[in-house]
Amino acid sequence: MTADYGVHSEVGRLRKVLVCRPGLAHRRLTPTNADGLLFDDVMWVENAQRDHADFVDEMRGRGVEVVELHELLAATMADPAARSWLLDRKITPNEVGLGLVDPTREFLESLGPMDLAEFLIGGMSTADLPGDLRPPYVALARESTGAREYLMPPLPNTLYTRDTTCWLYGGLTLNPLYWPARHDETLLMKAVYTFHPDFTGSTVWWGDPDETWGQATFEGGDIMPVGGGVVLMGMSERTSRQAITQVARALFARGAAERVVVAGMPKLRAAMHLDTVFTFADRDVVTLYPKIMDAVHAFSLYPADREPGLELVDHGSAAFTDVVAEALGLPGLRVIETGGDVYASERQQWDSGNNAVALEPGVVMTYDRNTQTNTLLRKAGIEVVTIVGAELGRGRGGGHCMTCPIVRDPVDF
Amino acid sequence: MTADYGVHSEVGRLRKVLVCRPGLAHRRLTPTNADGLLFDDVMWVENAQRDHADFVDEMRGRGVEVVELHELLAATMADPAARSWLLDRKITPNEVGLGLVDPTREFLESLGPMDLAEFLIGGMSTADLPGDLRPPYVALARESTGAREYLMPPLPNTLYTRDTTCWLYGGLTLNPLYWPARHDETLLMKAVYTFHPDFTGSTVWWGDPDETWGQATFEGGDIMPVGGGVVLMGMSERTSRQAITQVARALFARGAAERVVVAGMPKLRAAMHLDTVFTFADRDVVTLYPKIMDAVHAFSLYPADREPGLELVDHGSAAFTDVVAEALGLPGLRVIETGGDVYASERQQWDSGNNAVALEPGVVMTYDRNTQTNTLLRKAGIEVVTIVGAELGRGRGGGHCMTCPIVRDPVDF
Amino acid sequence: MTADYGVHSEVGRLRKVLVCRPGLAHRRLTPTNADGLLFDDVMWVENAQRDHADFVDEMRGRGVEVVELHELLAATMADPAARSWLLDRKITPNEVGLGLVDPTREFLESLGPMDLAEFLIGGMSTADLPGDLRPPYVALARESTGAREYLMPPLPNTLYTRDTTCWLYGGLTLNPLYWPARHDETLLMKAVYTFHPDFTGSTVWWGDPDETWGQATFEGGDIMPVGGGVVLMGMSERTSRQAITQVARALFARGAAERVVVAGMPKLRAAMHLDTVFTFADRDVVTLYPKIMDAVHAFSLYPADREPGLELVDHGSAAFTDVVAEALGLPGLRVIETGGDVYASERQQWDSGNNAVALEPGVVMTYDRNTQTNTLLRKAGIEVVTIVGAELGRGRGGGHCMTCPIVRDPVDF
Amino acid sequence: MTADYGVHSEVGRLRKVLVCRPGLAHRRLTPTNADGLLFDDVMWVENAQRDHADFVDEMRGRGVEVVELHELLAATMADPAARSWLLDRKITPNEVGLGLVDPTREFLESLGPMDLAEFLIGGMSTADLPGDLRPPYVALARESTGAREYLMPPLPNTLYTRDTTCWLYGGLTLNPLYWPARHDETLLMKAVYTFHPDFTGSTVWWGDPDETWGQATFEGGDIMPVGGGVVLMGMSERTSRQAITQVARALFARGAAERVVVAGMPKLRAAMHLDTVFTFADRDVVTLYPKIMDAVHAFSLYPADREPGLELVDHGSAAFTDVVAEALGLPGLRVIETGGDVYASERQQWDSGNNAVALEPGVVMTYDRNTQTNTLLRKAGIEVVTIVGAELGRGRGGGHCMTCPIVRDPVDF
Repeated sequence: MTADYGVHSEVGRLRKVLVCRPGLAHRRLTPTNADGLLFDDVMWVENAQRDHADFVDEMRGRGVEVVELHELLAATMADPAARSWLLDRKITPNEVGLGLVDPTREFLESLGPMDLAEFLIGGMSTADLPGDLRPPYVALARESTGAREYLMPPLPNTLYTRDTTCWLYGGLTLNPLYWPARHDETLLMKAVYTFHPDFTGSTVWWGDPDETWGQATFEGGDIMPVGGGVVLMGMSERTSRQAITQVARALFARGAAERVVVAGMPKLRAAMHLDTVFTFADRDVVTLYPKIMDAVHAFSLYPADREPGLELVDHGSAAFTDVVAEALGLPGLRVIETGGDVYASERQQWDSGNNAVALEPGVVMTYDRNTQTNTLLRKAGIEVVTIVGAELGRGRGGGHCMTCPIVRDPVDF
Repeated sequence: MTADYGVHSEVGRLRKVLVCRPGLAHRRLTPTNADGLLFDDVMWVENAQRDHADFVDEMRGRGVEVVELHELLAATMADPAARSWLLDRKITPNEVGLGLVDPTREFLESLGPMDLAEFLIGGMSTADLPGDLRPPYVALARESTGAREYLMPPLPNTLYTRDTTCWLYGGLTLNPLYWPARHDETLLMKAVYTFHPDFTGSTVWWGDPDETWGQATFEGGDIMPVGGGVVLMGMSERTSRQAITQVARALFARGAAERVVVAGMPKLRAAMHLDTVFTFADRDVVTLYPKIMDAVHAFSLYPADREPGLELVDHGSAAFTDVVAEALGLPGLRVIETGGDVYASERQQWDSGNNAVALEPGVVMTYDRNTQTNTLLRKAGIEVVTIVGAELGRGRGGGHCMTCPIVRDPVDF
Repeated sequence: MTADYGVHSEVGRLRKVLVCRPGLAHRRLTPTNADGLLFDDVMWVENAQRDHADFVDEMRGRGVEVVELHELLAATMADPAARSWLLDRKITPNEVGLGLVDPTREFLESLGPMDLAEFLIGGMSTADLPGDLRPPYVALARESTGAREYLMPPLPNTLYTRDTTCWLYGGLTLNPLYWPARHDETLLMKAVYTFHPDFTGSTVWWGDPDETWGQATFEGGDIMPVGGGVVLMGMSERTSRQAITQVARALFARGAAERVVVAGMPKLRAAMHLDTVFTFADRDVVTLYPKIMDAVHAFSLYPADREPGLELVDHGSAAFTDVVAEALGLPGLRVIETGGDVYASERQQWDSGNNAVALEPGVVMTYDRNTQTNTLLRKAGIEVVTIVGAELGRGRGGGHCMTCPIVRDPVDF
Repeated sequence: MTADYGVHSEVGRLRKVLVCRPGLAHRRLTPTNADGLLFDDVMWVENAQRDHADFVDEMRGRGVEVVELHELLAATMADPAARSWLLDRKITPNEVGLGLVDPTREFLESLGPMDLAEFLIGGMSTADLPGDLRPPYVALARESTGAREYLMPPLPNTLYTRDTTCWLYGGLTLNPLYWPARHDETLLMKAVYTFHPDFTGSTVWWGDPDETWGQATFEGGDIMPVGGGVVLMGMSERTSRQAITQVARALFARGAAERVVVAGMPKLRAAMHLDTVFTFADRDVVTLYPKIMDAVHAFSLYPADREPGLELVDHGSAAFTDVVAEALGLPGLRVIETGGDVYASERQQWDSGNNAVALEPGVVMTYDRNTQTNTLLRKAGIEVVTIVGAELGRGRGGGHCMTCPIVRDPVDF
């Protein structure tokens, strides 16, 4: 079954996609801990869940198979081997602290698969440990700061399934994420890909959370397999040249891609993923935020015979959109800029106005609140299906960030 | 020779100590990159070097053997096996990026040991690569952000040798530091302890930079082997219960200590090491900053037979100084608080006023600028030898932070 | 008519209230200018307007007369004398800059009252000046930073009518606000109270935007005329002892109040108004956030014959709620704390969970998102009418902040 | 005597200058209050005083008459009329708070002129009030936040006498400073210019701390009377177009200047004064920081007959240095950029490397720590006299900021 998995474009028909609903991790967010847990704001979780469910229903109603991380993980945890594999990695003296390893493991082993999945994603505090399993060491944890006060830290950024793994044509990457606090997101995904019967056997191009990757960090929000053997990769604070060059070599070595176009993001806005300022809405239509994209420096990587298996071309001052069009064999891209005046444009970028996810060529999902950009997309002939963003948008990620395509058709250029 | 190494108190005669002079790493600090390189301010490097040399001379003049990290590392790098061991770990695709591994290695292999040591500590930028070794991939590095723009990032916090390794009685720990950007400091020290003839053969209680430690982070600024088989450990943002419990067990298992007193630092000032607010000046004299120390929550760890080999005692609302006195068998500690009015006291804590390092019982080195605290110490009978702090103090560490004792005598209680 | 104006309690029947709908000022907010304009986040203005209209309709449906600032100001600006009075103060060389005074005035004089009111509240940018009125000096404005790039800066905090003026029993204060960027909000209100036929003749206890007040700043979010001749005043970053003592003296001198209870807000959270952590829901019911309110230091001010006309009593460690109960002659207050666990409680305070406005005794309006606090209020017998807070709540003010009562009945104690 | 006062260039022989030594205000600075008091760092006050005294001695040794603010103010306060004038403005209910006005005034009236001057500059805390003058209202002050906890707030930025008043050719401006917390600095200077026999009778072009100025703020760090009837004015966060246009008109109306060249500072670095990135070292020599100065947008203001008495010329993309050269009738300026590599250049700008003050043509004083920029100046034939900057430099102002020229000769162009 995984033989059919693969993402062959950014806008071809989306057939199977991974999402993760908001939940316990977001219930634990507060104004004071949100920074430490790497989430931008607190949300009304019940409403965020309702809006996320509507988002999923809309995709399902259009024929997309949507799988959800809590459910995948619960199904995975039903397998005792998977449960051992994952808890052996999570419930260790390094993570939980001596004196708390045994009671934490004992508690987690006592849970059913769905409850266990909830804690694996939502985090486990000392208060979650039943009274009869609470040794004196709990007092040390309560006096600890930040993530150390948890027995398993919450993973609120699982909401953005885009970042953790990337299907690039017929295989995937298990991404080493930039922030250490997000590393366990990839570990959960490895458990799914190793043990879940629908996922085991998938081809992995690169990445493994059991290894350390140093500066080689890679996040799916920067990565776009646009088709035609081309992959766009944003080189940002989160996605480094150290990772980009390795993934390019791995793809080239397996014949999975022929060219990587690197978008060197401007340094002043280092934290931005490429997809927060640039996404595709149709074969040749992109929506982008010009204030950032105009400052992108484009490079291309091609396969080469001699070490390191790569050749680099520096496109100098060429516009990124022109380089992308040329790579796709198009005469040019039609560009829909973030809509409205100077104020509205900046507000809509902030509200993920350029973070569209395509369901098929010319059909995208975006947040309802970016009315001006949505209108421009519609005027360009794009069908825009809206997601209620009042709560979901508070984490600064939109439809593209919240989806990890698993099967998507190619498109012709 | 290493058989004689060991630190048996905080104030016994200091016989051998490790320091690291300011240098290239600090020349690379600017107001905009200082945050990313985890250093508080920029300094006038030439003057900082002069003041550091005076500090070292003063210690040598009092009979302390002072070893310096650049020199130790250069001597270590003179051994080809050591050089290979270290460069194999530093010059990798994950750290340097594909396409730059070979020229970077080639350049570093061409250097003499002292030049190599300078780059290992001071960092290596793409501009340091000679023109004939500069492949096109250098352009990718120049467009990268933060530490990724370096081929080896600068390590300005090596100035604080206290943090990286701790001699605790007859053995040492190779500490996993909190910030990933500081991890390579420990790698350099492992090279020294593995290959330098004066250091190889030392007993290592715990820690290894070749392993990953997750939440188990440990920094020497929080650790004090006060004598009598007791070790004080600040549980702070930087030093976690996950590490404290492991080190305690390792010490107990080897019979190296009998009790660990944990200082649970207040959460509001999470970043502080214990030694920024509390150090010893004599057997029973401490200097401390009451605004923080009054909020410390004390615990003790003792050896135990059953798993996890530890027993925890929660001292509740008892004063930390009383717990320490009791652990040392003293009727009480004489406490010298940060001097001056409410303004001066806060200023002097900020200027490392409580960060004294003892040369022998009743003789400490502190920064000259904390005149009021120094006067109080002198009135209490302590001999205070001053360090010029105008430049060195800008990194927010004092004499205690800048020294890693290797041989220190015990004291009687 | 203004003879009937007056606010005689926090929870008596609300008969007339001032609000200000979101508008042009909020359309100008962006992530980068929001700090400078003193607003916490950007909002979807259309939806915020819809939710605000629902909020107003709900009050009107319950018999409250609601007046809206844009409309009051438009009606005021229909009077040429009022228009001159206000524009003489706003369109000056100090505010607009030489060379731009005449064209700006000419443009504003050409507008109808409603359009003029919209710009007075929403701000006027150089782009709003018609082309034929744009002198070369516009180029200087475009190169200016922050509020100086406007000809009239936007006033987004007009949304919080609570702060600008306070009816305290039979008269009002025209408040000098803390931030200079908000001073013009009070100027607009003075225009209304001076020229609008429904408001002229009102008694002003204290305050005048034509004077300068230095450290004597006063914001309605800190002020509560609870009845029985008592006024609560939060002493915060925004409301100073310099103002509190003056207002108390003015009230005492006119016989308008008999006692002021001062809530000395804890220094660590200086920016908080009292009503962000404490409001009344019924005669003897308050909702509060204990983490802050437990640290409040209470004082009372009473009239005195000798200079300065005040007597101060320091309540030391007495609980603020006990002091308030005693002042009202109640045996105690029933306290509804922010609901939920430690996470939810902090989140709901942040989301204005304690910022209730009463429509009559036992009936309050609060944001829908604070479901746990709302449930606790309902369990305590309070009728809770919800306001949709998804957009309105982003500025960190709730129902209490968004309302300035003009007529409210007394209650019996 | 004041008839001879006047500053006719940036580099002509300096004959009389105003400085202010560090003192009580800096002793009150702590890491937590420094932001609120608008000072960048804490300093070792005793050493800063020593270094400042050396700076003054060096100027005196070269024939400059140096007057010091504490001394001027003490001499002024010896006049009872001056004392009443100033205390009537400082010790008011708005500033001190009701209940504290009388005891504060009584205490200050009891002081000798020098002690009074010390408190006027250094601030007065409630602890400074003698016990027998301490009414219960002191408790309110102690619970207040920020500057409100003082009876007179400290004025640490008096160290930078450059900002408060500007001699522009034969008259001066009494500047409305940007931050309200600095407004009283100008009030002190008005007392001196009104009552001190050496200063009374001076011509004031513009400004008066007894009036309010709104957006029209003006700081001497942005202002340079370069000679030839030209004044350079940086339009920055601190110095607004609203003030620049008024001062230009005032100068033109009195025939005091013929042209104002406006340097529109780039918005991203809004807080910078022009003199932090650009100063003169000789008739035709400037030292500047290119990263900022390259982004300056130049305008000129000329006298005009019709309203508003000004004509604006927009120099578009012309280099600021070229516009200045043309204004001075020079073929060009010789430019000394901040010295060293990319790291050193940024560090030295931060350390006030471009903030030189000229004693005569070709002789400047700068901080010792900017060795690379100083070397470049020397290589260009400039005599560089160094100031010890280890402490003085911590407030981010150099020799230019710390001096307010009162008499300076013209130069020929």
